[in-house]
Amino acid sequence: MNPRPNLFPDLAIAPRLFAALHAMSFDGLGITREAYGPKETAAHALVAAEAEALGLRVEPDHAGNLYMTLPGTDPGLPRIILGSHLDSVRSGGNYDGAAGVLAGLSVVAGLVHAGFRPARDVTVMAIRSEEAGSWFPVSYVGSRAALGRLPSEALDVPRQDDGRTLAAHMAEEGFDPEAVRAGRATLTVDTVAAFVELHIEQGPLLDEGEIPLGLVTGIPGSRRYRAARVFGEYNHSGATPRRLRKDAAMALAELAYRLDAEWARLETEGHALVCTFCVLATAPEAGFTLIPGEARFELDMRSESRASVDLLHAALIRLVEEIEVSRRVRFDLGAESGSLSSKMDAAVYAELAEAATTADVAFVPMLSGGGHDTAAFAQAGIPACLVFVRNQFGSHNAREAMRMEDFDAACRVLSRWVIARSSEDGAP
Amino acid sequence: MNPRPNLFPDLAIAPRLFAALHAMSFDGLGITREAYGPKETAAHALVAAEAEALGLRVEPDHAGNLYMTLPGTDPGLPRIILGSHLDSVRSGGNYDGAAGVLAGLSVVAGLVHAGFRPARDVTVMAIRSEEAGSWFPVSYVGSRAALGRLPSEALDVPRQDDGRTLAAHMAEEGFDPEAVRAGRATLTVDTVAAFVELHIEQGPLLDEGEIPLGLVTGIPGSRRYRAARVFGEYNHSGATPRRLRKDAAMALAELAYRLDAEWARLETEGHALVCTFCVLATAPEAGFTLIPGEARFELDMRSESRASVDLLHAALIRLVEEIEVSRRVRFDLGAESGSLSSKMDAAVYAELAEAATTADVAFVPMLSGGGHDTAAFAQAGIPACLVFVRNQFGSHNAREAMRMEDFDAACRVLSRWVIARSSEDGAP
Repeated sequence: MNPRPNLFPDLAIAPRLFAALHAMSFDGLGITREAYGPKETAAHALVAAEAEALGLRVEPDHAGNLYMTLPGTDPGLPRIILGSHLDSVRSGGNYDGAAGVLAGLSVVAGLVHAGFRPARDVTVMAIRSEEAGSWFPVSYVGSRAALGRLPSEALDVPRQDDGRTLAAHMAEEGFDPEAVRAGRATLTVDTVAAFVELHIEQGPLLDEGEIPLGLVTGIPGSRRYRAARVFGEYNHSGATPRRLRKDAAMALAELAYRLDAEWARLETEGHALVCTFCVLATAPEAGFTLIPGEARFELDMRSESRASVDLLHAALIRLVEEIEVSRRVRFDLGAESGSLSSKMDAAVYAELAEAATTADVAFVPMLSGGGHDTAAFAQAGIPACLVFVRNQFGSHNAREAMRMEDFDAACRVLSRWVIARSSEDGAP
Repeated sequence: MNPRPNLFPDLAIAPRLFAALHAMSFDGLGITREAYGPKETAAHALVAAEAEALGLRVEPDHAGNLYMTLPGTDPGLPRIILGSHLDSVRSGGNYDGAAGVLAGLSVVAGLVHAGFRPARDVTVMAIRSEEAGSWFPVSYVGSRAALGRLPSEALDVPRQDDGRTLAAHMAEEGFDPEAVRAGRATLTVDTVAAFVELHIEQGPLLDEGEIPLGLVTGIPGSRRYRAARVFGEYNHSGATPRRLRKDAAMALAELAYRLDAEWARLETEGHALVCTFCVLATAPEAGFTLIPGEARFELDMRSESRASVDLLHAALIRLVEEIEVSRRVRFDLGAESGSLSSKMDAAVYAELAEAATTADVAFVPMLSGGGHDTAAFAQAGIPACLVFVRNQFGSHNAREAMRMEDFDAACRVLSRWVIARSSEDGAP
């Protein structure tokens, strides 16, 4: 492998589009592009216009995902897709998601400028509604809808900021929630040869290791409680002795502290997992001189390994039962949500590793911390892999940063891979 | 002792005035009478009207406290005072504070109806601004102002709901903050022979023990942090490994859990104290898939014994320093506030115990959990004691309850005490 060694991605597109995305979605603190809302739709329009200017075939699907395709010479071959999402968390960063879409456009623009005709279709996919934390508390909405695998009940879930359902938002943006509900699939194992997503790492490991690229071997699954509560009893903080207290805050503090200790113990036993109390708060009724009678929390447990996360979950249940007795409180964990873990495709991983070596870009194999649309493709049986770009200050916050030289290096790797992968079984 | 055994308090006043207070200050959830605000002032007007109808001498002081006096036959004798406060916490109960004022009126009304003339003045005092938790974060505002002992800087403290200072609120209700600032005293050790406050217990001990009355031997002091914070770093909950986290919520959970354990340990060593995290919360920026970068808490530590609360405070500082290192966070405890503990006057206690025996009302000696205006009198050197009435469901909440039969029993005891105490050195 090493076809067309002089063919490079167009590295001028991304800085311009990142600036345009920032300008349209800066909220005064950070970036907000709400899932199935005007800002996400504006971001789709921006990349669609760029794709049209490049002469690509531009098509939305029934769920609002956007496909920007450089047609192959052999229409019978399954296509390859480079894609990621364009929504963001509330007041997040500009790169989480968007980097993968702009990388795809940069790579395909390079092919177009060089007059390269792939054998198979090369599609850049802009995916809808990936950020489950801020909008719809559902994993991988757009990608699963494209694959015909979004559960029907997900359409009835309300968006967290306005309470209106996913179906209502989808319809309002001009798409077809009933087709999603019926399981219509735009993408299938027969028509997609491979899916690759470039994404910022969102964690500090690459930056610490001074390595620009990570090739992901697996995406974790999760067990989550997003609306858990503890009920005790409000009482005077001076007049109520210890033995008569039903302190909801102290029960929650004990649960958090001891589950954290359980996590540490599992790590020393070799399990790879994370456990985060994302929110932990006494109720608004709490006040000075009152023992808290109610508290709430949001708990996120993740691992590559279902067995590891299940061990932590078992500890959670055991601690809840124990603390309910010892502190005379009641826990209501609420609905559990989560996602299955996904192994990345070994062949696509090997192709990407070869492309990185060819492009002379250093990389390490790594596990993903977060979930990504790639997981939905993997679960649908499509060969899929995730490429991490080194970034700074995490993500899901306004300080999220990425060096353009690292993004460019990643694009060179993707370009090598696309040329190789889209040429096989056809004319280079 | 047992003068005038046929002289009883007027037990019809309190039910009527409790109902009127409830009607004027029910907020839809509970009772709200804001300190130095329209509802507290309306409550003062209500009891003033009742006192005037009884023919008492009614006078406010420079800080807005109200004195309703049955004059004694010997103007040279120092007076005795029955009093408590009329403000409430936000959405609290109707009895916390008001019970002591209505008890005083019931007792004095009984004297008036019987034509009893005390030797010394008997004053019912309605005190301003006692509830430090909801309004001004300052202990015993009205009583210390009456005693000329409110620190000048307290006048510049903002009320927690509207941010306007105590001085501004005092002036707006028609009183004289500059006289308070100058330390003008309406009440002194020379002019007050004794102060007794009836108050609901606010705790469950009397109800558990099936005893209507508690005679308090001491009021605890406190060390408090009302605006403490922990700073960590927001990061992705999936992508940030344990060793790189700066989790503010987990640091706070650890502090709360381990300080609670320290409290339990001190109790087993014989220390009597309480420790409450009244508020404990991640910052509003917290959200799902984020490691919390900031959290806040309000901490209330109380004991009769300064040495006990100081031991707990030392543990707090030690834990903060330890957790700052182990979890890579920074604590900012903010300003410390608090109050000194106060012993009740042994002679007044003995008189009240004799009155309870005479009135055939069962009682137990007990420690107060909460702070009360009585503490301000004790610290000013005035013989003072606090009488607890059994109540249900604590206080500082809308469910706070009290049986009128217990209140009536307490009024009979106070009536015995007032008759005995106001008759000595003068004509019964």
